[in-house]
Amino acid sequence: MKRYAFFISDGTGITAETLGNSLLSQFEGITFERVTLPYIDNLDKAQQAVTKINESAANSGFPAIIIDTVVDKNIRTIIDTANAFKIDIFAAFLAPLEQELGEQSSYTVGKSHSPADSTNYRDRIAAVNFALDNDDGARTQHYADADIILVGVSRCGKTPTSLYMAMQFGIKAANYPLTEDDMADLTLPASLRTHKHKLFGLTIDPDRLSAIRTERRANSRYASLKQCYHEVDEVELLYQREGLKFISTTDKSIEEIATRIMAETGLQRRLQS
Amino acid sequence: MKRYAFFISDGTGITAETLGNSLLSQFEGITFERVTLPYIDNLDKAQQAVTKINESAANSGFPAIIIDTVVDKNIRTIIDTANAFKIDIFAAFLAPLEQELGEQSSYTVGKSHSPADSTNYRDRIAAVNFALDNDDGARTQHYADADIILVGVSRCGKTPTSLYMAMQFGIKAANYPLTEDDMADLTLPASLRTHKHKLFGLTIDPDRLSAIRTERRANSRYASLKQCYHEVDEVELLYQREGLKFISTTDKSIEEIATRIMAETGLQRRLQS
Repeated sequence: MKRYAFFISDGTGITAETLGNSLLSQFEGITFERVTLPYIDNLDKAQQAVTKINESAANSGFPAIIIDTVVDKNIRTIIDTANAFKIDIFAAFLAPLEQELGEQSSYTVGKSHSPADSTNYRDRIAAVNFALDNDDGARTQHYADADIILVGVSRCGKTPTSLYMAMQFGIKAANYPLTEDDMADLTLPASLRTHKHKLFGLTIDPDRLSAIRTERRANSRYASLKQCYHEVDEVELLYQREGLKFISTTDKSIEEIATRIMAETGLQRRLQS
Repeated sequence: MKRYAFFISDGTGITAETLGNSLLSQFEGITFERVTLPYIDNLDKAQQAVTKINESAANSGFPAIIIDTVVDKNIRTIIDTANAFKIDIFAAFLAPLEQELGEQSSYTVGKSHSPADSTNYRDRIAAVNFALDNDDGARTQHYADADIILVGVSRCGKTPTSLYMAMQFGIKAANYPLTEDDMADLTLPASLRTHKHKLFGLTIDPDRLSAIRTERRANSRYASLKQCYHEVDEVELLYQREGLKFISTTDKSIEEIATRIMAETGLQRRLQS
């Protein structure tokens, strides 16, 4: 059975999409064809959305599923005419919240809330730039400004994790690749030693590491199973010897790696979304 | 009035956080102290969470607000003992969805759904690597593999937008800085011309651009208002002459820039979250 699911919003659609995916992932027996319709912010666009939804419903033989966060009542009235089963987030939760908080919501009074906050924007761009400038051990002289310094062997997930932490949380994350030389010395490089309290280790299953490295450089010593087992063994020994916290990135999404690091270190997000 | 809001999850907490922030942003008269508690996946952690929630409630003089996506019933039972007003996403929406879809949810049968999908992970890392490798016009020989090539003057938001599109949607986004030389030629550089259908322009308010550039290089010609006005004028003329779609990044969040580009170009996300 295939069902169409529409995530509809007058803004980016990220809330509807995030919640929608979370709910739909609970139904493993059904294949969902997901469509996000962002910026449905006038009656014409709403009517076009309804046409699209009705075509999909006819195509699948079932009503579509709609998960929406549209605020404007006139737009909602049009969306409601579609052949669909609707999950109405605001209707479900804002009325009880209004009662609990003793205040009317912007939704109820028909005012959409302010979008991008410019301090947030600047902090976030600064964090992304910091992650880019301090990626892969490129520079170590700015580690005093870092919130965290991720360490690990090449291709264990340091760069995407640093960028995600910057983008989502505004955290200034540098990262530094631990090489065979570092491990042969049985100690942390001097540039890291002074910032030891900011270090956080990543590790990875050696077989998975070998597969990832093979995509970049097939049949190399770098990608060989033997080399990967050796490096991972050594780096985990180093973490233990130095008393560094570390987690495995194997089978984890970038979100999960990043949020687990936040939880383990107690770092707090610097952005209010 | 200050209220504590807790976003609680047995996973990353991203769904609870996203929905929670969306709902709370509708109450502009109230200051919320937001706390995310991810990976509450055993009874001990649940009990610690309750202690923390109760302390916050006592501290503010009001029950806390809880927005949660915990699946396990025993953990939920403990969370329910906290002094809090609870927004229960799964309880609210899964029962009606089960009826509509004619299937029991994993939540109901007590099975948590599978997290990271390895194809997704690989596609995403590949897209992030593509964005990094093809940032700022560094290389132009891989544009055939790009889904989109963002163009614009220096510091208008190309890099964070490319990275966000890669991370969130798995889109391979290159970016290329248009310089005075390109604009003086009144035409697109040859490396871009062959991929004209993939180009998407960014522009920005010149005063804002000058402020951003000043943070990087104060009192330079590069950051001067005159120079910024000149470059933005020229680049917008170029977009119009070449018939390129473009949007302004001024006062937009990175999410908004990225999702608007997706909507304008009709690009579809390559990741199923």
